[in-house]
Amino acid sequence: MTSTSLATPAASVTPDMAPAASLTARICERIVAAAQTPLEGDLLRAARQLFLDGLAVAVAGARLEHSPRLLLEHFKDPLTGSGSGATAAVLGLDDRLGTIAAAMVNGASMHVLDFEPMWVPATHALSPALAATLALGEAIGASGAQLLKAMVLGIEIQGRLRQAAGKLQSHQLKFHPPGFVGPIGAAVACGYLLDFTAEQYANAIGIAGSRCGSLFVNLGTMTKSSHCAYAAAAGLEAALLTRRCFTATQTLFDEAPQSYGDAFFPVGFQGERLLEFGRPFRVLDPGYAIKVFPAKFTTHYAITAALLARPQIPDLAAVKQIRMRAADVPSSDRPHPKGGLDGKFSLQYTAAAALVDGQVGLSTFTDEMLARPAMQSLLGKMQVTLSRDIPSIYTEGRYLEMEVELDDGTVVCTRCDRPRGSWGAEPITEQEHHAKARDCLATWLDAAAVEHCVAACDRIEQLDSRGVAELLALASSGRLDPPV
Amino acid sequence: MTSTSLATPAASVTPDMAPAASLTARICERIVAAAQTPLEGDLLRAARQLFLDGLAVAVAGARLEHSPRLLLEHFKDPLTGSGSGATAAVLGLDDRLGTIAAAMVNGASMHVLDFEPMWVPATHALSPALAATLALGEAIGASGAQLLKAMVLGIEIQGRLRQAAGKLQSHQLKFHPPGFVGPIGAAVACGYLLDFTAEQYANAIGIAGSRCGSLFVNLGTMTKSSHCAYAAAAGLEAALLTRRCFTATQTLFDEAPQSYGDAFFPVGFQGERLLEFGRPFRVLDPGYAIKVFPAKFTTHYAITAALLARPQIPDLAAVKQIRMRAADVPSSDRPHPKGGLDGKFSLQYTAAAALVDGQVGLSTFTDEMLARPAMQSLLGKMQVTLSRDIPSIYTEGRYLEMEVELDDGTVVCTRCDRPRGSWGAEPITEQEHHAKARDCLATWLDAAAVEHCVAACDRIEQLDSRGVAELLALASSGRLDPPV
Repeated sequence: MTSTSLATPAASVTPDMAPAASLTARICERIVAAAQTPLEGDLLRAARQLFLDGLAVAVAGARLEHSPRLLLEHFKDPLTGSGSGATAAVLGLDDRLGTIAAAMVNGASMHVLDFEPMWVPATHALSPALAATLALGEAIGASGAQLLKAMVLGIEIQGRLRQAAGKLQSHQLKFHPPGFVGPIGAAVACGYLLDFTAEQYANAIGIAGSRCGSLFVNLGTMTKSSHCAYAAAAGLEAALLTRRCFTATQTLFDEAPQSYGDAFFPVGFQGERLLEFGRPFRVLDPGYAIKVFPAKFTTHYAITAALLARPQIPDLAAVKQIRMRAADVPSSDRPHPKGGLDGKFSLQYTAAAALVDGQVGLSTFTDEMLARPAMQSLLGKMQVTLSRDIPSIYTEGRYLEMEVELDDGTVVCTRCDRPRGSWGAEPITEQEHHAKARDCLATWLDAAAVEHCVAACDRIEQLDSRGVAELLALASSGRLDPPV
Repeated sequence: MTSTSLATPAASVTPDMAPAASLTARICERIVAAAQTPLEGDLLRAARQLFLDGLAVAVAGARLEHSPRLLLEHFKDPLTGSGSGATAAVLGLDDRLGTIAAAMVNGASMHVLDFEPMWVPATHALSPALAATLALGEAIGASGAQLLKAMVLGIEIQGRLRQAAGKLQSHQLKFHPPGFVGPIGAAVACGYLLDFTAEQYANAIGIAGSRCGSLFVNLGTMTKSSHCAYAAAAGLEAALLTRRCFTATQTLFDEAPQSYGDAFFPVGFQGERLLEFGRPFRVLDPGYAIKVFPAKFTTHYAITAALLARPQIPDLAAVKQIRMRAADVPSSDRPHPKGGLDGKFSLQYTAAAALVDGQVGLSTFTDEMLARPAMQSLLGKMQVTLSRDIPSIYTEGRYLEMEVELDDGTVVCTRCDRPRGSWGAEPITEQEHHAKARDCLATWLDAAAVEHCVAACDRIEQLDSRGVAELLALASSGRLDPPV
């Protein structure tokens, strides 16, 4: 990389500060090395599953929620003037935008239902990495195999960053994790597509570091899904600016006063752990949780306990009180959700929906479902205790206990230790996962197009750039014509 | 504002949580009220001076540094696809972009020289507010008076936010202040131009809160000026999304777990202080420091002490050691700056430049100036001690002491308590400020165009939207033709 910048490190002045010696440089060498790992066997299967999940969930998100469409309209508005280029498909909304705007809209679509996979330590690593990968990949004509690799690398750095945060409980987090690891994940994914050197990765990571942020207080609003959307866009932008020799710190992960570690890792940043990048990839170890309910993962504990309790309750009208004892995730105690999106974060609402309907799905989170008398009645009977005695880390003994007390004094007790599809719990079969994907895709695609889309994702690593473009055109337009 | 959103607060469900009762709502009512204050007398004079300073410094920044041009090329690249619209002038670079991209480039230009005014508590409030104001203002046809008002309001909220942080010393800051107050400042400025209600201000502030961030570790790189640039763009985007009924928390400034206050204000967030908004405006009380040197304000103490010492040093070759004792601003101890931009943050480099050249100006910060043997020799003799015994807050007794020891044992001692142009120091006259503005503008405009530009800024409040457009076209193209 030849730099045209005045601010480029002048090796003659500071030989002792050459980035080659830094921790960040060593980590970036690891990224370059890990990028050589072939995707095969279990790693390939996992990558394919994530790709299909992301694509399907994005199509449904774009169709069922407002925010992706608002973002699209925003970017197409001449007053904004940021939507030009049309180089990348906008999933589920039958349109095209420039890469950064497309990454933003697709990132929002992929996250807005809170239906994308969950990671441990907790973050949403797929949408930042995949939304950026799709936009840039399509624009530069990447193959399906390249998309998969970029996505896996972008997820990997996010997983390693969350690991470097140490055993941080939910209530100790100051920022929403996709906001402080997502931009870096997207930058790494895009760096792979642009064939970055280690030095370029370090620079892109440095730019992305100054784009990290995102606040928990926006959970329950459209701005929450914009955290993932923006992470995808910011990481893509960091990579594109790096390609243009825009400079940043090349030592983001190194210890320093007022550093990235200081800013985002309240109990200490174990930067050395990032050297474990790709050994093995976090998509395989510890893996991820495929979501079976479109709601914040925290609520899956409440939903599971409620579904277990339901058959033991003869009549919901006879419920006197429902008590839950859960891990201290401050944002999950929402006795009065303000609407559909907000309900996705509420232990009370999700448990009540499971009890009333016997299922929680794409149709659960609307104002109409919230307004039902049976729902409002049950919400009034909920009592939630958040306890720091219960670990909030999923794989460290987290659980939720529920007691449903009936008018006759009967108490139905249930407990969830591991929601389905998560670490150590009953796995989701491939068939079940395909069913989830079909449900999501069917919000926009007709039956033939759904099957075509699922089949293409199942062999995504064999698609060339034209095949990728056709798949994305299908997921954008919803139509099989012109025949692909 | 009629909302189309599913996630809009449903008053029937949560009457007790209506935003009207919140601290944020009360603050936003204050913003609406303060927007009625006429700009006249000292307030008008201060606003005019800031406007001229920002415009002139941006033109010079665009001409003298690489990053604004790189950002422009980035946005015009079909692969990025974010530059469409051409609704707003790009200062100093003879081009036009969509509003958000233009705010970004102009924000970088306005900040990249580190020549814009300084505020207390420390931040760079002008570039986030003014760059956003110019882009949106031109696009919607705002008058000069409207631009000034928007800029003042956007600066005001940033000043109040820094005040709400309490007496925070530099070393206690985790983030670069323009990164965590700038997006909100730009959102408020744009909200005024879009005639927001208090509720809309609260929503835009909520979106902007999730765009706050920016790391000190990027000082000395192009990414530092992108903090202000991005703040302008993010705040503008937050306002445009609010106009489109995109939802966010409407209680950003209220106390809550994992809140904005928690995330960015390490020694506590005194949110109630934001109610002082506009009483009087911070541009008048305590005012701001006009910079006379294009370098981080911290270095103005070193430059001043060095300029005082210089006449007492018969021969620089006879200097044995230069000792500085300064406030603990971790990023200012840079014994070996890596290049021009990096030198702007270095106590050592700026002091050496003042000693070698007898002045510090636009030409000081290049690799060539750094590479000079006299400079390298002096850099090798610098010893800096950062002390927490010296307050880092400018108006709380901050100072810097310098001792220049000569080979014959003589020690020249100087001290700077207040750099020129700052609080309580000798003020900059209007004539001197005009001279600074002319110097900056002359990097791109010919003499007649410079005079035209200065004269237009001096009566900016009288310009209608056409006059504003002509002024910005001039500052963009550098040419008086077609005659304006």
